[in-house]
Amino acid sequence: MNNVPYKTYLSESELPDAWYNVRADMKKKPAPLLNPATMKPVTASELEHVFCKECVRQELDDNTPYIPIPQKVRDFYKMYRPSPLVRAYFLEKALGTPAKIYYKFEGNNTSGSHKLNSAIAQAYYAKEQGLTDVTTETGAGQWGTALSMGCAFFNLKCHVYMVKCSYEQKPFRREVMRTYGADVTPSPSMTTEIGRKINEEHPNTTGSLGCAISEAVEAASKMPNARYLLGSVLNQVCLHQSVIGLETMAAMKKLGVKPDVIIGCAGGGSNLAGLATPFIGEKLRGENDYRIIAVEPASCPSLTRGRYAYDFCDTGRVCPLQKMYTLGSNFIPSASHAGGLRYHGMSALISELYDQKLIEATSVEQTKVFEAATLFARTEGTLPAPESSHAIRVAIDEALRCKAEGREETIVFGLTGTGYFDMVAYGKFNDGEMDDYIPTDADLAEGFARLPEITC
Amino acid sequence: MNNVPYKTYLSESELPDAWYNVRADMKKKPAPLLNPATMKPVTASELEHVFCKECVRQELDDNTPYIPIPQKVRDFYKMYRPSPLVRAYFLEKALGTPAKIYYKFEGNNTSGSHKLNSAIAQAYYAKEQGLTDVTTETGAGQWGTALSMGCAFFNLKCHVYMVKCSYEQKPFRREVMRTYGADVTPSPSMTTEIGRKINEEHPNTTGSLGCAISEAVEAASKMPNARYLLGSVLNQVCLHQSVIGLETMAAMKKLGVKPDVIIGCAGGGSNLAGLATPFIGEKLRGENDYRIIAVEPASCPSLTRGRYAYDFCDTGRVCPLQKMYTLGSNFIPSASHAGGLRYHGMSALISELYDQKLIEATSVEQTKVFEAATLFARTEGTLPAPESSHAIRVAIDEALRCKAEGREETIVFGLTGTGYFDMVAYGKFNDGEMDDYIPTDADLAEGFARLPEITC
Repeated sequence: MNNVPYKTYLSESELPDAWYNVRADMKKKPAPLLNPATMKPVTASELEHVFCKECVRQELDDNTPYIPIPQKVRDFYKMYRPSPLVRAYFLEKALGTPAKIYYKFEGNNTSGSHKLNSAIAQAYYAKEQGLTDVTTETGAGQWGTALSMGCAFFNLKCHVYMVKCSYEQKPFRREVMRTYGADVTPSPSMTTEIGRKINEEHPNTTGSLGCAISEAVEAASKMPNARYLLGSVLNQVCLHQSVIGLETMAAMKKLGVKPDVIIGCAGGGSNLAGLATPFIGEKLRGENDYRIIAVEPASCPSLTRGRYAYDFCDTGRVCPLQKMYTLGSNFIPSASHAGGLRYHGMSALISELYDQKLIEATSVEQTKVFEAATLFARTEGTLPAPESSHAIRVAIDEALRCKAEGREETIVFGLTGTGYFDMVAYGKFNDGEMDDYIPTDADLAEGFARLPEITC
Repeated sequence: MNNVPYKTYLSESELPDAWYNVRADMKKKPAPLLNPATMKPVTASELEHVFCKECVRQELDDNTPYIPIPQKVRDFYKMYRPSPLVRAYFLEKALGTPAKIYYKFEGNNTSGSHKLNSAIAQAYYAKEQGLTDVTTETGAGQWGTALSMGCAFFNLKCHVYMVKCSYEQKPFRREVMRTYGADVTPSPSMTTEIGRKINEEHPNTTGSLGCAISEAVEAASKMPNARYLLGSVLNQVCLHQSVIGLETMAAMKKLGVKPDVIIGCAGGGSNLAGLATPFIGEKLRGENDYRIIAVEPASCPSLTRGRYAYDFCDTGRVCPLQKMYTLGSNFIPSASHAGGLRYHGMSALISELYDQKLIEATSVEQTKVFEAATLFARTEGTLPAPESSHAIRVAIDEALRCKAEGREETIVFGLTGTGYFDMVAYGKFNDGEMDDYIPTDADLAEGFARLPEITC
C-alpha cells in the first residue's frame, strides 16, 4: 500500500462555498429551452409559473461561473458531506491492474444517492420564496426520497407522484418517503385531470415517468402556494451537483494526484455533469486535459445512438423542449433494472459538451454491469446501485486496458449510490434470469420519426 | 454553532491497533461458561470443536487488556472505519435542549450495522486456521449480511441458516447475502437432523433463532473443515466491538469533550459493550466517571426484570450455559420490530458489569421508540434501525431532562445501524398500527420456572 489513504475526507471547512457553472466557461452555450406553445425561447417569467424563482435564475444564467451555496444548504450538506474519495485498493488487487482507481462515494446518506445535493438546494429556495408545498415525480424513488428529506428539514409539504409500478414494486421506498412526512400518490392517479384522463383511456396502465411529471406539474399549478421540482436534466440540477466534482478535484489536489480518466453513468446527466464539469472547466480554460466518459445502458443509448435535436422532455409533451441527444420522447426503453438511466434524452448541458467532443460516451449491457457490481461489492464492500454500476463496469474495463497496455493511469469514477432498494434486480442476476435488451435500428427509427421539426 | 464540527473523523492512522478487553480491569470477572453435558466450566479444547481456535483464546482470556487487531482486519476496517462521531446539532435544536448530543454512527457500510466489526475478525481467524467453510444463523439479517461480506473478502464459503419467517419476509436481506456469495437456507430446513426433527414435529413452524443456531452448529460439525461463528453475546464479540468505544473516546478527547452519559441499546449486549467498555475501564481504574445506560425493549426486559442466573444461551439447550440476566431460555418475546433485541438473555460481560452497578438499565416501549426514530430521521437525516432507535429514545429523554434541569450535560449514544431493511416496521408505525406488548409478571414467572438449578 502506498501513502494514499483508503478514504480521503475533506474537512467541513473545505466544503465548497459556491457551485461551479461550467456554462460560463463554454464559448458555445447549450441551446435555450423552448416554450411548447410558441416554440420560442422560454422566458424567466414563463418558467416561474412552474419552478422556484431562484432556480429559474440559475437555470438561465449562462455567465456566472460560481454561484454561492446558501449557508443553510451548506449546514445541511455537512450532515453527509464532504463525501469520501475512496482509493479502490482491493478492486485494483483483484484486477491485477497497474491503474490506480478512485471513486467518489455519494451513497452515504439515507436517500442513497447524490440526488440529495440538489433536493436540499431546491427545497431551500422553495422555503425562501415562502412556498408551503412542492410537488415532484419519482420513478426508481431516489429523487422522491431525497426531496422528502429536504422538505422534512425545511418543514415543507412534499407531494410525490410515484410511477404506479414502482409504487407497487417498491413499497419500502414509498415508506421511507412517508417516514419523512411526504405524501406519495401512485401515478396515474384520480387526483389530477391528466391522471383521470389516462386512467379512463388506459385503465390497466402501470404508469410512466412522463405521466407522473405531468401530474406533478398540474398538481403544483392548482395549489395556492406550490411549485414543481425536478431532480435531473435541468441546468440548475447539474449546477448543484457540481459540489461532487469540486470536492473530488480538491481531494485529488490534496493527494497530489491528477486523474487521467473520469467516468460517470448518464441517465438525465446530472451526476456526470456534477462530477465532470469542474474538470471540463480546466479543459475549456486550457489548464489541463482529461478523458471524460459518459456511460449509458445499451437499452437506452441516447448519446451513442440518439440524434442531437430539439425534443420534448416529457412523454406528455407539456414541458419545455430542449436541444439534446434523444431517442424521441415516445421511445420506451425496454425493461432495465437501472430505472434512473431510463430516460429518452440527455441534459442539454451534457449533450452540448458531448457535441463539442469534450466528453466521450459508451454504452454497456446490464448483465455485464451486474457482473461488475458483484465484483465491486465483494472486494470493496459497498453494494452499488445498478445505475452507478454502469460507471464501475467501464472503470474496470479501463483498468484492464491499462493492464494490457502496462499503463499506470489514474481512473476516477462516480459511485452515485447504493443498491439496497434494488435487490429484486440483484436477485434476477443471482438466479441467472437477467436479460440484455438492445433496441434495433428499426426500434430507434420509430422514435426519431416523431421528433418535432425545429431548426435552431 | 460552536467549533465542534458536525462529523469528527479520526484519520486512518488513528484507527485503534488493538481491541480493549475490559475483563482484564475487572476485579470480579464474568462467570465462566459451563459445558451443558457436565455442568463444569467449559475448556478451550471443548470450545474449539465449535469455534475457531483464536476466537476461543480470546473468549477465555480474562487478563490481557489489549489484544492486537491483525493487519488484514485493520485494512478491511479502513474501508468503513474510523466511523464518524456526529454532533446532533439539528436534534438539539429541535428539542431546545442545552445538552450536547453526540452519536457514533456504525451504519455506513453495506451490512448496515456494527456487526461487521466482529464478522471480519472472525472470518479472518477462520481463514488463518485454514478453514474453508463457516456456518451461522441470522434472524433480522444484519449479522448474516456482515458475515457474508467478511467471507466474500477472505474467500470463505458462508452458510447462513435464516429464521424461516425472516427468510420469507425479508427477501432483500437474503438477496444481499447471496450477492456476497453466501448460501442462505430457511430454518428449520431438511438439511440437518435437528431441522428435519423440528419440521416433522411442527410442520407449520416459522422457525426461531434457537433452532437456527442448533442447525448451524450441527452443519459445521458435519463439514470437514468448518466452524460456527456467532455475532453477539460472546466475550470475543464484545472485544471486537470495543473498536467503537476506543474510536469514540479518541475523537472526544481530540475535541476536548468529556461525556457525562453514554447510551446504547442492548439485545445480546455486544454493541453496548463495544461502545462503553473503554469508558468503563476508566471507571474501574478510577480515572474518570460516567453514567452508562443500557436500553432494552419493554417487551424483552432481561436486565430490568430478569434474573441473574446460569441459563442456556439457546432454546435448543445444546450450547454452553452462561451466567447472565435472563428471562429463561424458553421465554418467547412478543412481536417486536427490533429483531436484534429479541434475546432472552444478555451477554455475561454486560450482565456482570450491571450486577456490579457499573452500568444502569432502562426499558422503553416500541411506539415511543419509533416516535424518536422519526424525529431523528427528519432532523438528522439518517433513518435509524429500530434497535438503535432505543438508544435515540433515551438520549432524547435525557436531553429533555437536561432542559428541565437547565443542565449542559454531554450525551453520547451508539447509532448502531440504519433501518433500510425495516420499512415494514416503519410502515406499521406510519399507519398507526403499531402496538406495545409488555410481558406480565405471570409471563415472566413461566420463564423463570424453567431456569436450570445451578449455583456458582
